[in-house]
Amino acid sequence: MSAPDIQAPTAEMMELLEELSAFSAPGDGVTRLLYTPEWRMAQQHLLNRAGESGLKAYSDSVGNVYGRLAGTRPDGKVVLIGSHIDTVVSGGKYDGAYGVAAAFTALGYLNRMYGQPLRTLEAVSFAEEEGSRFPLTFWGSGNVTGLYDGSEAEDCKDSEGVTLLEGMKSCGLGDKEPSAPRSDISAYVELHIEQGIVLERTGMQIGVVSAIVGQRRFAVTVKGTANHAGTTPMGLRRDALAAAAEMMLQMERLAAEAGDPLVATTGRLVVTPNTPNVIPGEVAFTLDVRHSREDELEAFCASVVSAFEEIAERRNVALGMALRLSASPAPMDSGLRAELEAICHQQGRTYRAMVSGAGHDAQLFAPRCKTAMIFVPSQGGISHSPEEYTPPEELAAGLEVLIALLYKLGYEETDEDGLVPQNTKERWT
Amino acid sequence: MSAPDIQAPTAEMMELLEELSAFSAPGDGVTRLLYTPEWRMAQQHLLNRAGESGLKAYSDSVGNVYGRLAGTRPDGKVVLIGSHIDTVVSGGKYDGAYGVAAAFTALGYLNRMYGQPLRTLEAVSFAEEEGSRFPLTFWGSGNVTGLYDGSEAEDCKDSEGVTLLEGMKSCGLGDKEPSAPRSDISAYVELHIEQGIVLERTGMQIGVVSAIVGQRRFAVTVKGTANHAGTTPMGLRRDALAAAAEMMLQMERLAAEAGDPLVATTGRLVVTPNTPNVIPGEVAFTLDVRHSREDELEAFCASVVSAFEEIAERRNVALGMALRLSASPAPMDSGLRAELEAICHQQGRTYRAMVSGAGHDAQLFAPRCKTAMIFVPSQGGISHSPEEYTPPEELAAGLEVLIALLYKLGYEETDEDGLVPQNTKERWT
Repeated sequence: MSAPDIQAPTAEMMELLEELSAFSAPGDGVTRLLYTPEWRMAQQHLLNRAGESGLKAYSDSVGNVYGRLAGTRPDGKVVLIGSHIDTVVSGGKYDGAYGVAAAFTALGYLNRMYGQPLRTLEAVSFAEEEGSRFPLTFWGSGNVTGLYDGSEAEDCKDSEGVTLLEGMKSCGLGDKEPSAPRSDISAYVELHIEQGIVLERTGMQIGVVSAIVGQRRFAVTVKGTANHAGTTPMGLRRDALAAAAEMMLQMERLAAEAGDPLVATTGRLVVTPNTPNVIPGEVAFTLDVRHSREDELEAFCASVVSAFEEIAERRNVALGMALRLSASPAPMDSGLRAELEAICHQQGRTYRAMVSGAGHDAQLFAPRCKTAMIFVPSQGGISHSPEEYTPPEELAAGLEVLIALLYKLGYEETDEDGLVPQNTKERWT
Repeated sequence: MSAPDIQAPTAEMMELLEELSAFSAPGDGVTRLLYTPEWRMAQQHLLNRAGESGLKAYSDSVGNVYGRLAGTRPDGKVVLIGSHIDTVVSGGKYDGAYGVAAAFTALGYLNRMYGQPLRTLEAVSFAEEEGSRFPLTFWGSGNVTGLYDGSEAEDCKDSEGVTLLEGMKSCGLGDKEPSAPRSDISAYVELHIEQGIVLERTGMQIGVVSAIVGQRRFAVTVKGTANHAGTTPMGLRRDALAAAAEMMLQMERLAAEAGDPLVATTGRLVVTPNTPNVIPGEVAFTLDVRHSREDELEAFCASVVSAFEEIAERRNVALGMALRLSASPAPMDSGLRAELEAICHQQGRTYRAMVSGAGHDAQLFAPRCKTAMIFVPSQGGISHSPEEYTPPEELAAGLEVLIALLYKLGYEETDEDGLVPQNTKERWT
């Protein structure tokens, strides 16, 4: 069987994407939080659509929805393709939902066009990734990969005091035993909007993700002395905000020196007492650092801590830095990356290897199976906003690349583990 | 009549100060806001004490309380001595109240010791200076000097929606015609705690104020682009907080170059959206600048505006700067300053000429009559706090200096305008 001449079912995917966006709480953009009525309706809609496409539709104990296209091979291995169905509050139509709509549409298309594959393909719509309702993230993929075991559901509460378990029960879940982590997944593929401006700025259609960045998040506090803004000479001040300003600028300089793909951000900053005529006595701010390599991440954080300490000592303010989050980089599978680049080449698409600065469900699969991520551009880099947008032709390009990869993974005769061997690039050029 | 051998009535003043501090709303420190029951009781207490001291006690249409010691001269001119009775929320015992207690105590003492003066002396407890309850300041001295004419009372509301006029009526005021601005005041003298750390740091007992600083306050907004902290490379950011940080640091550098007494402060800063994983799209901050000279104040503000514009342009962020407050410096009378320095010398007190970085009632009198201010130290420079403190012996020093000045102004034979001529320093050395 040779590489197919794909006519991407763009209209079908766009229709599904539009349908999903209608399952939203009132307000700007799309708001579809875990275990809400709109979330339940969206997942039910996908179950229906999967069934109509000839896929085996089912859901697991936490409400992840699957559409299974069973293969003829008896090894029981599965190629899983998907993303998450939940959104942030007043989010866009594309974050997560695009990858879900593309996965279900792609399997329906492959089933129609090529029938039963050699290897089992499953589309998935993960219950949750954003952490928008409950104080946890990756609840969907985390239950599949073993990050969670379901026991978290009793104690974890949303801002209204509703437990995760109560949320599950409101959607007809939570009564059966938690599903065990899946051990049958040999590969995971996720298509997603970039949520950044790299593809747009560089004029590329496709991003082949090389790694999802590792991350450190610090809570920083600087304590000086609050004092009268009029009566305290500049030389006698212990201004916590001036010290924080110097720290932020120094961090920015160090990040520029480190170069891409390192990013370092102070997104949140709170001043106390925050009154025009009082010198700030205390400033609390966050520091979010990301890099695709663990050693670079560590080295940068060490240089920031050292610079902050020097500034605090010189300015006679007290410095506190608490590590609040630490995640290792998740490299994508080099074989699948090579396949994706070959497909882009074959389809005549512009593409680039790139790091994902955002977290994705794929990072939970990367340590466990061959994992790939495909990005399409985000207009203006805007995401987590009603203004999130990618034109249909750019969404279609991602879908075509995905289908080509799934055709290879599902229908081509290759090695025994159900996946294309790494050195097959010549077949595509 | 020669300079008296003053035995400052410290105990009497401390007793009055303690009594005043008991007129407070519940909570930490002293809270005595304009036209509240505790405010009314404090002013009534001063009326009673003034009467007991043989002063003519009266109040005006806005509730300023006076204790008048009438002179024998028929010119009708008055030397006014005092400060304000209101406080900030959870303020200290000393800010304002010290100057009030000292003024009423001093006149009672002078009356007891020396009888009727040549020139009329009046102690005053101004109704309001802090702006803690209603969105205006200097309501007391402003009605005496013509800054206000009483018409503001109908529209001005506190945070509960109560108008100034309703507040006045709750204290038995507001029914009669507003008092006209006073034209009989030939001099104003105010004794106050420093509210800063200059006297403490330099080991001085008395500050002879040379000027109350002029002030400019700007509301600054910096607009960049809010974006994902993980997916936006450093080189593609328009980070409003990084730009604001550079502005604040540059302002600090320019202030250091300008030198004392210039002070420049960012006391309030608010980040939008203020989320750890989003690059700040907008930052609003205040800029408070003070100097005793108008030309220096103007030059500094111009240099800051220019520096901010350069930073905004280079960083491709939008800058808005709105002038919210502009007050000219108020120089104190050089003749009265010389008198005060001579008195300090005579009493063997350490003293220094200094600028007041804080605003005071005296600044409203300075353009209208000979005006003087005397400072005593504030422990740790702390003010507007329950921890505000000055030891009794340091309060006593201020009282003694005040009494010596009032003796000169009230009892000595001098020129026809009722004030000591400027070149009389030799009589004190």
